[in-house]
Amino acid sequence: MSDLVAFGETMLRLSPPGTERLETASSLDIHVGGSESNVAVAADRLGAVTTWLSKLPRTPLGRRIVGDLHQCGIETDVTWSRDGRVGTYYVETAGKPRGSKIHYDRSDSAITSASADELPLDRVRDGRLFFTSGITPALSPTLRETTKQLLQTARSAGTRTAFDVNYREKLWSPKEAQDVLTGLFPGVDVLIIAARDAKTVFGFEGDHRQLAHKLASQFDFTTVVVTRGEQGALAWHDSVVHDQDAFETDASEPVGAGDAFAGAFLARRLTGDDVPRALEFAAATAALKRTIPGDVARVTMDEVEAVVAANGTSRISR
Amino acid sequence: MSDLVAFGETMLRLSPPGTERLETASSLDIHVGGSESNVAVAADRLGAVTTWLSKLPRTPLGRRIVGDLHQCGIETDVTWSRDGRVGTYYVETAGKPRGSKIHYDRSDSAITSASADELPLDRVRDGRLFFTSGITPALSPTLRETTKQLLQTARSAGTRTAFDVNYREKLWSPKEAQDVLTGLFPGVDVLIIAARDAKTVFGFEGDHRQLAHKLASQFDFTTVVVTRGEQGALAWHDSVVHDQDAFETDASEPVGAGDAFAGAFLARRLTGDDVPRALEFAAATAALKRTIPGDVARVTMDEVEAVVAANGTSRISR
Amino acid sequence: MSDLVAFGETMLRLSPPGTERLETASSLDIHVGGSESNVAVAADRLGAVTTWLSKLPRTPLGRRIVGDLHQCGIETDVTWSRDGRVGTYYVETAGKPRGSKIHYDRSDSAITSASADELPLDRVRDGRLFFTSGITPALSPTLRETTKQLLQTARSAGTRTAFDVNYREKLWSPKEAQDVLTGLFPGVDVLIIAARDAKTVFGFEGDHRQLAHKLASQFDFTTVVVTRGEQGALAWHDSVVHDQDAFETDASEPVGAGDAFAGAFLARRLTGDDVPRALEFAAATAALKRTIPGDVARVTMDEVEAVVAANGTSRISR
Amino acid sequence: MSDLVAFGETMLRLSPPGTERLETASSLDIHVGGSESNVAVAADRLGAVTTWLSKLPRTPLGRRIVGDLHQCGIETDVTWSRDGRVGTYYVETAGKPRGSKIHYDRSDSAITSASADELPLDRVRDGRLFFTSGITPALSPTLRETTKQLLQTARSAGTRTAFDVNYREKLWSPKEAQDVLTGLFPGVDVLIIAARDAKTVFGFEGDHRQLAHKLASQFDFTTVVVTRGEQGALAWHDSVVHDQDAFETDASEPVGAGDAFAGAFLARRLTGDDVPRALEFAAATAALKRTIPGDVARVTMDEVEAVVAANGTSRISR
Amino acid sequence: MSDLVAFGETMLRLSPPGTERLETASSLDIHVGGSESNVAVAADRLGAVTTWLSKLPRTPLGRRIVGDLHQCGIETDVTWSRDGRVGTYYVETAGKPRGSKIHYDRSDSAITSASADELPLDRVRDGRLFFTSGITPALSPTLRETTKQLLQTARSAGTRTAFDVNYREKLWSPKEAQDVLTGLFPGVDVLIIAARDAKTVFGFEGDHRQLAHKLASQFDFTTVVVTRGEQGALAWHDSVVHDQDAFETDASEPVGAGDAFAGAFLARRLTGDDVPRALEFAAATAALKRTIPGDVARVTMDEVEAVVAANGTSRISR
Amino acid sequence: MSDLVAFGETMLRLSPPGTERLETASSLDIHVGGSESNVAVAADRLGAVTTWLSKLPRTPLGRRIVGDLHQCGIETDVTWSRDGRVGTYYVETAGKPRGSKIHYDRSDSAITSASADELPLDRVRDGRLFFTSGITPALSPTLRETTKQLLQTARSAGTRTAFDVNYREKLWSPKEAQDVLTGLFPGVDVLIIAARDAKTVFGFEGDHRQLAHKLASQFDFTTVVVTRGEQGALAWHDSVVHDQDAFETDASEPVGAGDAFAGAFLARRLTGDDVPRALEFAAATAALKRTIPGDVARVTMDEVEAVVAANGTSRISR
Repeated sequence: MSDLVAFGETMLRLSPPGTERLETASSLDIHVGGSESNVAVAADRLGAVTTWLSKLPRTPLGRRIVGDLHQCGIETDVTWSRDGRVGTYYVETAGKPRGSKIHYDRSDSAITSASADELPLDRVRDGRLFFTSGITPALSPTLRETTKQLLQTARSAGTRTAFDVNYREKLWSPKEAQDVLTGLFPGVDVLIIAARDAKTVFGFEGDHRQLAHKLASQFDFTTVVVTRGEQGALAWHDSVVHDQDAFETDASEPVGAGDAFAGAFLARRLTGDDVPRALEFAAATAALKRTIPGDVARVTMDEVEAVVAANGTSRISR
Repeated sequence: MSDLVAFGETMLRLSPPGTERLETASSLDIHVGGSESNVAVAADRLGAVTTWLSKLPRTPLGRRIVGDLHQCGIETDVTWSRDGRVGTYYVETAGKPRGSKIHYDRSDSAITSASADELPLDRVRDGRLFFTSGITPALSPTLRETTKQLLQTARSAGTRTAFDVNYREKLWSPKEAQDVLTGLFPGVDVLIIAARDAKTVFGFEGDHRQLAHKLASQFDFTTVVVTRGEQGALAWHDSVVHDQDAFETDASEPVGAGDAFAGAFLARRLTGDDVPRALEFAAATAALKRTIPGDVARVTMDEVEAVVAANGTSRISR
Repeated sequence: MSDLVAFGETMLRLSPPGTERLETASSLDIHVGGSESNVAVAADRLGAVTTWLSKLPRTPLGRRIVGDLHQCGIETDVTWSRDGRVGTYYVETAGKPRGSKIHYDRSDSAITSASADELPLDRVRDGRLFFTSGITPALSPTLRETTKQLLQTARSAGTRTAFDVNYREKLWSPKEAQDVLTGLFPGVDVLIIAARDAKTVFGFEGDHRQLAHKLASQFDFTTVVVTRGEQGALAWHDSVVHDQDAFETDASEPVGAGDAFAGAFLARRLTGDDVPRALEFAAATAALKRTIPGDVARVTMDEVEAVVAANGTSRISR
Repeated sequence: MSDLVAFGETMLRLSPPGTERLETASSLDIHVGGSESNVAVAADRLGAVTTWLSKLPRTPLGRRIVGDLHQCGIETDVTWSRDGRVGTYYVETAGKPRGSKIHYDRSDSAITSASADELPLDRVRDGRLFFTSGITPALSPTLRETTKQLLQTARSAGTRTAFDVNYREKLWSPKEAQDVLTGLFPGVDVLIIAARDAKTVFGFEGDHRQLAHKLASQFDFTTVVVTRGEQGALAWHDSVVHDQDAFETDASEPVGAGDAFAGAFLARRLTGDDVPRALEFAAATAALKRTIPGDVARVTMDEVEAVVAANGTSRISR
Repeated sequence: MSDLVAFGETMLRLSPPGTERLETASSLDIHVGGSESNVAVAADRLGAVTTWLSKLPRTPLGRRIVGDLHQCGIETDVTWSRDGRVGTYYVETAGKPRGSKIHYDRSDSAITSASADELPLDRVRDGRLFFTSGITPALSPTLRETTKQLLQTARSAGTRTAFDVNYREKLWSPKEAQDVLTGLFPGVDVLIIAARDAKTVFGFEGDHRQLAHKLASQFDFTTVVVTRGEQGALAWHDSVVHDQDAFETDASEPVGAGDAFAGAFLARRLTGDDVPRALEFAAATAALKRTIPGDVARVTMDEVEAVVAANGTSRISR
Repeated sequence: MSDLVAFGETMLRLSPPGTERLETASSLDIHVGGSESNVAVAADRLGAVTTWLSKLPRTPLGRRIVGDLHQCGIETDVTWSRDGRVGTYYVETAGKPRGSKIHYDRSDSAITSASADELPLDRVRDGRLFFTSGITPALSPTLRETTKQLLQTARSAGTRTAFDVNYREKLWSPKEAQDVLTGLFPGVDVLIIAARDAKTVFGFEGDHRQLAHKLASQFDFTTVVVTRGEQGALAWHDSVVHDQDAFETDASEPVGAGDAFAGAFLARRLTGDDVPRALEFAAATAALKRTIPGDVARVTMDEVEAVVAANGTSRISR
């Protein structure tokens, strides 16, 4: 039985070494990444037993994804298909002013055809918490329906649910996202949302504490976490708002830091921490992620605790 | 004005270093490859001025393909699209008994929607020889029609035409291929066909000399080249069949050797060599290709001449 | 419940790229390898559910080993220790006449102190087959005792047992090996032995068929497999000896081919194949291993079947 | 017909990966670079059609240079020689206080013997703008004469001319440079000069606005651009001086940023932008260059516009 | 005859490229490092003739260490042993907040059994200065005795002695260190100590100038250097304390900077510089080390002088 | 005092990884190589104390060469110059039929101006054997004179001399070589000559045993070694000719195998082996070299002895 059961797409992540360009790089580093599996790995590292559900084609690339997630330490229960492809994305990393760029090539991946009845629903029913993100319903009409059914399955079975909005403008318009997400929110207990997405998708401006309060009361969430990048995060819970600063970092692997935050927060809540403590661990995990190549927070509990304890300072450990 | 104008799909070619596996490789080497551009580069290296026509999305990967082909030395005239993706394939190279494996991820690439009216037909009309392969019409119904129109455009303008059957079982069935290709052959002057494909697609068994003769008389080709891998090749021309042995090689980059053969043969014919001489240069170019990473025959005329002169032997050149 | 439960040491395998030398290489490729986990992975790839038991220190290198084995697809149940180190070995690969060289740095690894009572014995009792090799008792006096107890635990629980002699001259003398192994053999059902080791450790000369027969009758094994490198293998079972040729291979990753053979043979036997069929799959798996960097046979069932079907020939698959 | 025709030396640029040292690096990354071709590529990326003229030996390294420039997108018209070598330089990149170091090995390269009569002068006559830098006349007495003749050829044909002073102390003394450049300036319309060089070569101290004014009036330039590294740049044109700040950058590939600035400025002027707009694009292109390995500004117009629009800020684009 | 003779352990240093993790890196960069040989190389680069004494096993890894030190330019006189291993350590480099981590695997290395009578004591007697660090006596009881005897050998022969405390908490407790070091100090002329170690091992709190004074008077050192990381260093000599700021650096290879400081200080003292000048060169060498991969300060005298002259600023040198 | 003192040019050797091409490789592997230092390293590995004399510019590349030779284990005594460059060569390695290609860029290297009076002649006088090759006098008129003087210096001091003809057609014509070498031979004791060069330079056809005899009698050599690549070698000594087969090898690093042969032969003769034994070790060293990247025979005496003992067979050593 898992503490956290996540469902979503995981892709092949191809990136030129260092700050090289796709136009001229002679090789691409391979990682795997996907918002929900990133969250699952971070949760596992922070002490939760996690299982990732998805649909993949039975190809070397499909096996690659599962193998790498096993290496990260999580369990998987994958529906293997004959058709469809593995989603792929290309990441160009660069400093200012170029900035990092992600080019997606994810259309028609196998998961876009995943219906609820071909997924192992008992995993959802037996878990303590079910998690997915706003990327999943954005991928295809089939997945919109599947997402809804998975949330309902969880609810009916008494499994709690968490949802990260994760708006992707290349997948759908703000209007579409708003319509679909609003329909899903009634099935969600814990909402995680970037302040930026709250503005883009829901038109929320202004104070982030009010935003959390408003969302919680409108959709009856038990917890609302608002992430604000380098400005830290806050969480509304039981009508109280808790603030958390971001830890200082001079490292440059920003992709996946938000997922690391979400996974760590959920894991610490599942293992009994209160909200402020969970936020602190989440912020430390996100800061560590920014030092690790790829999208996945390959951290240890010891490291996270050390960051929390040192309040972000570091020296050579030997 | 080009000697040779080629039309077809060129893809991103991603391959693990050495004999590593896709399941575990930490990086992928990047090359670009496509049967028609491979032929174009080999033709350019052997002395023909060549232009490659295609359709690509305006993305870093689309630009990558064009940049690499320019680096190879050929001209390009690309129709840039907003939609569609770049076709991709993954090559795992290995010795016996594993053998090399190619995994395609090429569905819905931008070229599959290329109609004749969005292509620079004057390039075809102004060229001396138009070339494409059986892969092109296999990619989409649109491209079947486009291939036919390009061959007709060439014919009407007095541009000669060459066609390499290049059967790909993952794209269509032998029956489909046979139907479509038979419809295209009346517009073709020079046919290149692997003995293996002649059997699979057209059911030709037995003696390869008779096969060449039979094809030539049935479809009225001026030249028919039958390639036989390590057994060499033969060419029917003016009712005479010329044999050519393969040059010995201890190298292990087999992918693209057939295209190198075709490109070199056509270039030498265009620059005035007779059929036996063109076959000899084609075999030498194919042998050199087998020593070069990637699918493209980055050779020099000097090197090809040296192989022909040395009849395949080699020593350290210094 | 596992089909196969393996116990033994897995180490960090560090090797210069290509044929570079340890004296000057600027980097080392990382793999993990150990005879028993190599066998476990091959067995998993050939259809058996496998679990690997071991003892490792709770360090990044210890986690690395477990992560990589998970990536390979097998389950692990590891006893984590505060003390001890991870065994390490350095592999220099080269062609004739230099040959490949392995330099071990494995003294005092955590597993050398592993007693039976800190291992999950129920895994052994619940498995269908328990496997270890002659390396394990060679590592320390403690492990000699532990090996004996694990074999007895298996026997008592009705779990069958398999044992690969795997003599390592840097760990013990032939005399020591003979004494200890002779004491362990009464607990073994399936013996795997290299013809070379039979001569070195047990002084068996001459005909390998007689050797198998003699070993079987002396120690009451149900099956005796004698491996002979490029000369293939033979298996005695129910008083009949079956011969198997090695498949031809032009590849150069010989380390681990014997383990691939053993794992595939055991897996096919566990899944119901008869001895000749299991030998054929074992030989094909070993041949494929020789094309794969590292010590582990990352093959698929499809690939093994293709080698068996093609009887060792290969062409580009696309 | 080209918008910009550039003439100069392009070399092989060899650099240890990261911050490694030439004394111990096990490999060198290969790029090609030369002030004039760097300018040409930046101009091409910013919308000008460009052609690069030079002289190279017919060797693999000579072909390498042309191939890479074609990959960058520019046209070339090269005089191939039997003799002479390819200039080479070694770049060690490092942060403070070591700083980046360039070691030249460029003596006796093929271009040092290039006389005007072996160059395609019609390219110069047919272009809209001819460009070279102060490096060219510094390379050999022959090239001093050739530079003069090319500028005269341009003038006579009504082609405008631009010149970047680019003083290199390892090639000549300030006195020599001053003498030669003063002789060339009457043929130049647009002068680009680093404030540092103005001081070293021409002894100009003090206010940079006055410097621009003084140079313009003394040599009758139509435009004078003074670059000041991290302090930005300014341009005198029609008696007005325009200031441009540098964009903020946290990246570390400084070599070639000045050439990127020059190329972008000239291209935007050629395509009709006014001086302030051209300066803004030039500064953005230079800032982007600092994030790109090698000496060449492989940017896109979209990226430059995005930097201008965002005024230098960046976030993950996905 | 050497200016400086150093004795200590040098190990294989294995580090994932960039900021990758040991759990997933596919390769490890190889360097060699050890406090005393790091000091020796820095001293050599700053003008002292140096010899390094140690004990190593006669294996490829032992030869690797000697080869790399020869490449660095120093002499070696190694006692080769049949037994024992080469010490190994793994370095994970990362920015804030993860920080760099060193994992040692150095137990039972060959040097731990080195007694004075198997070392070339004449080298110590013939040198001008003998150097070792607090790591050496921490490695084994045998080495405690050997360290003592080497210091006595030096003293008796009129060779001066220098000692860097270099406390390593993974090797011994502060109490053990204090006891042993206090016993060794009477044989030491020049003491180098990190302010951090002074607090941990000797319980010195407060003002660093007083600390230096106190140590000097208590143990009768001729010179005491207190290093303070980014806060610079100070040296007590002839009752005067000299301060030295650290040079600014934006680079990230901190491991070995302290050894570079020590080696440069000792070399400049040996070649006749006064204490303030030696401190300045030491600080510049340490700053340069922070830009160089590995633990060794591969700098040139020219570079150090340039840093001192420029007071830490840098621009592209060409 | 050295057993063998070698004089000659050592260059930077830049080679694309694997079988990649200079036209497209993204990096070049760095080695150092030069016939005389290759010989010196092989001699050192086979038991002779060796010193290498040369002239190099005081640049990072000059230091690189000396550092790498120190790493190989030999002593150096280099005349450092302000002017001149480091010779460079580019090696493209490939299998049949492409073969390996060496492109030299060695004109005007520092050594071309080396006169005898700036070299440490006492090293020559104090050595037991002085060695250089036919490359040295081919590099410049100055070096022709220097080579003559060094041979005379050796002769006068009673130092024996060895000379490898090593004809390089890119440096001089057969006629020039013949004239110069014939003038040098009277000062030579041991001549090493490839059968191929004997034909090209001296017009010797036919039986190699007669060739050796003829050369010995004509120039009064004490020993003449004729190397014949894969056909092995023979040596004339005291009027007897000894034959030696080449050892079988499946490896592909041929460059430098001849130097390895020469160095090993001379070292074994210097350490007292008779001619047949020295030939056997020379052939084994050359065979091992063919498995080692770069031009230098980084072998151990143990490895050479093992090849001799096994007569060329190899298995995994563990």
